[in-house]
Amino acid sequence: MSGAARPFPHRHLLGIEPLAAEDIVQVLDLAETFLEISERPIKKVPTLRGRTVINLFLEPSTRTRTSFEIAAKRLSADAVNISGAASSTVKGETLIDTAKNLEAMRPDIIVVRHAHSGAAALIADRLARTPVAVINAGDGTHEHPSQALLDAATIRKAKGKVAGLEIAIVGDIDHSRVARSNLYGLTRLGARLRLCAPRTMMPVGIEAMLGPAAERVRLCYRLEEAVEGADVVMMLRIQKERLGKVGLFPNTREYARYFGLSLRTIERARPDAIVMHPGPINRGVELDPALADGARSVILDQVTYGVAVRMALLYLLGGGGAAPAE
Amino acid sequence: MSGAARPFPHRHLLGIEPLAAEDIVQVLDLAETFLEISERPIKKVPTLRGRTVINLFLEPSTRTRTSFEIAAKRLSADAVNISGAASSTVKGETLIDTAKNLEAMRPDIIVVRHAHSGAAALIADRLARTPVAVINAGDGTHEHPSQALLDAATIRKAKGKVAGLEIAIVGDIDHSRVARSNLYGLTRLGARLRLCAPRTMMPVGIEAMLGPAAERVRLCYRLEEAVEGADVVMMLRIQKERLGKVGLFPNTREYARYFGLSLRTIERARPDAIVMHPGPINRGVELDPALADGARSVILDQVTYGVAVRMALLYLLGGGGAAPAE
Amino acid sequence: MSGAARPFPHRHLLGIEPLAAEDIVQVLDLAETFLEISERPIKKVPTLRGRTVINLFLEPSTRTRTSFEIAAKRLSADAVNISGAASSTVKGETLIDTAKNLEAMRPDIIVVRHAHSGAAALIADRLARTPVAVINAGDGTHEHPSQALLDAATIRKAKGKVAGLEIAIVGDIDHSRVARSNLYGLTRLGARLRLCAPRTMMPVGIEAMLGPAAERVRLCYRLEEAVEGADVVMMLRIQKERLGKVGLFPNTREYARYFGLSLRTIERARPDAIVMHPGPINRGVELDPALADGARSVILDQVTYGVAVRMALLYLLGGGGAAPAE
Repeated sequence: MSGAARPFPHRHLLGIEPLAAEDIVQVLDLAETFLEISERPIKKVPTLRGRTVINLFLEPSTRTRTSFEIAAKRLSADAVNISGAASSTVKGETLIDTAKNLEAMRPDIIVVRHAHSGAAALIADRLARTPVAVINAGDGTHEHPSQALLDAATIRKAKGKVAGLEIAIVGDIDHSRVARSNLYGLTRLGARLRLCAPRTMMPVGIEAMLGPAAERVRLCYRLEEAVEGADVVMMLRIQKERLGKVGLFPNTREYARYFGLSLRTIERARPDAIVMHPGPINRGVELDPALADGARSVILDQVTYGVAVRMALLYLLGGGGAAPAE
Repeated sequence: MSGAARPFPHRHLLGIEPLAAEDIVQVLDLAETFLEISERPIKKVPTLRGRTVINLFLEPSTRTRTSFEIAAKRLSADAVNISGAASSTVKGETLIDTAKNLEAMRPDIIVVRHAHSGAAALIADRLARTPVAVINAGDGTHEHPSQALLDAATIRKAKGKVAGLEIAIVGDIDHSRVARSNLYGLTRLGARLRLCAPRTMMPVGIEAMLGPAAERVRLCYRLEEAVEGADVVMMLRIQKERLGKVGLFPNTREYARYFGLSLRTIERARPDAIVMHPGPINRGVELDPALADGARSVILDQVTYGVAVRMALLYLLGGGGAAPAE
Repeated sequence: MSGAARPFPHRHLLGIEPLAAEDIVQVLDLAETFLEISERPIKKVPTLRGRTVINLFLEPSTRTRTSFEIAAKRLSADAVNISGAASSTVKGETLIDTAKNLEAMRPDIIVVRHAHSGAAALIADRLARTPVAVINAGDGTHEHPSQALLDAATIRKAKGKVAGLEIAIVGDIDHSRVARSNLYGLTRLGARLRLCAPRTMMPVGIEAMLGPAAERVRLCYRLEEAVEGADVVMMLRIQKERLGKVGLFPNTREYARYFGLSLRTIERARPDAIVMHPGPINRGVELDPALADGARSVILDQVTYGVAVRMALLYLLGGGGAAPAE
């Protein structure tokens, strides 16, 4: 099966930044195979039977946790959920102690969601007693690699390729781990990006951060400029609690007016442009509901690819030896 | 196997109101078969292997969620729980977006509990991309169909039939989805009902609501009248937070005095009358503890039938093609 | 297989106190077998397939719940979690009603964690309708038997025996269910104990409580005395919220100074002494971080044995008839 033959050259998935283009393509190719399994009446293969996947979600996230849990179960792995409120971190245990304790229970994979940037890498660094793999399911404002991989899979499916596409990413770039992971992933696959944000929501020193990708990235401070001629327009969720703070943006109405994607603005994109959003959507703020539900939207395809991409990741990192399809 | 041969003529289970008598009987017959599985040492059949059941409980309910989860697992389905506090509805996503996102993960069944009447129907109406089935596990004050089905199964087992029985339902009829679902279900099966409540807890316009069932329903405002000669006395849980409000009922002591079922009052019923309660019981308020634990009580049988009825529902709506028993 | 042939002479596991030495040895022997399963790539045996294990955790405990859940899944049982906040005990149902309702769903084992001493025994006493087994996963300040069993398994592995060892248990003995269960278990296996606490944290009437074990137990009020010549030093977690209260201990700094185990103090123990802790650790309070992570520490081994011991318990009480290893 495509994607399964080559050994994946990483023990953990901590971000997209360390991945080569061929690593990303390997995940996407394998995800295509797994996508098909979710369309069967019997959506289950025995690939990871007897493996244990712990979903350690110390920041709430129903969607991502559910996606990983379904992915694990469709591979016949045992999935164990630990959520923030219930975690013994409330008893004052450090994150590293929590992780080492979980490792001692001999899981094969720990999927980590955490409010602090670098939390997944910290855990991966300290888990040396067993070959457990760590998957970053979102760490602070750092990375959300499985999201970027499902985004790339969705784009590749919708447009037949990623290389050469013009992709706009719009929103609070500064605080978005989705933007950061997509920045690495999509440029590595050969796309050209327009990063668009209010000036107050663009990272300071963004040019330095871009590194070798800089030549493929254009910074925009007006939505119209970002959308003009784009093949893909990816709108980020605005965190409402960040609006109204000093130096950011006054309120949701102002944000919607200048940086919300409307039926009129999308007309500047290419006729076959697609609209994406990592969810959950603030309808009427960053995205017009008519666009979210319209023909250009691939937002629900992103969710469907989410399960398939996560199955591919669990398979590659969880030591599924046999071919995934029975 | 009885009940499995006929295709169930509904995609969803949103309430008892849309069901014909033969639909109800089909569920009850099938539940008898599944009841037996829970009595085996190995309480599991492979019927729904590879199917995904999502329990979307946006209103807390340990019992009903546990019952559906055990039912799913005994059919070998993968069960995924989403609870209210953890849900991304906290991030401001609409219920419809939540449901569409879950649909995109390709579950076979979504079991929904929600505080608003009509929530399950709303979801079912919008999930058009896949053949996913929606089961209403309680929506506001509207319906709680699996409860009514397990009640009917319990009554049928205890009394050998439902038709012709005199069944009293006592409590806050106005706000009880259990009462509403049982009203439809039990009259359709040919029982005669006595709905009994304080006047302030009887729905305004109840006569119109009853429709063709009106001839089988008597309204009572005194407990003694409702219990007199009854075959079945079903006590509803009183929500204590509703007592003491203007126009309702002063307090739990007064409620217990006039509408709580006592050892003395039950003597008015038929000698072989059974006592039911959907749980959890407010002991000493709507029900004397001696009755809850006494020989007439079938309250724990209701719980046992709950798992069996939910297995039947998951089987009928989840596309279990083969016979449920190995 | 060692430990599986003899029928376990208890229906429930409510504490260590009712266990004979040979019962404890049976669990430890069986745990050795199960330990090996968690080291395999495919960590699963079909032993408890079709059995239902309910984890009823009415007091939060991520570690213990996760350990029992993983144990159940590695035996192929269906595990269903109920946690405190989500439980219908919030609706005012009594613990006994909750337990009876769960029993009516026909689980094979109910694992109970509860803030009140005696809760597990109360449940076990009332569940008479089915042969369900109750496992106490920690009840108030009473017992935490699976913890004591995993401690004994860890000690036996590290030292080759338990009999004749000198074992110090240090901390708030008065409120520690871990201390209580270990007191019963380790003396029954022939160890000699030093119980060490500030005078305000030693149970009043401890001598009477010790009963026939008294000759094997020495009470110490200075850490140095307890550690002197010990083979094993088990530090208990101090509950910070208990410090600063009248008559107990002023604050964490003072506690650490007098009852926290340091690199210097451990030198009084035998050269090959091991350090234990039930977790989660208050680093720098009851235990120096360098000791927690040092060569003497078997703290993570305790966690690994935790899964194995719980597999053994579920096997012995859950009616796993066949040999556990395929």
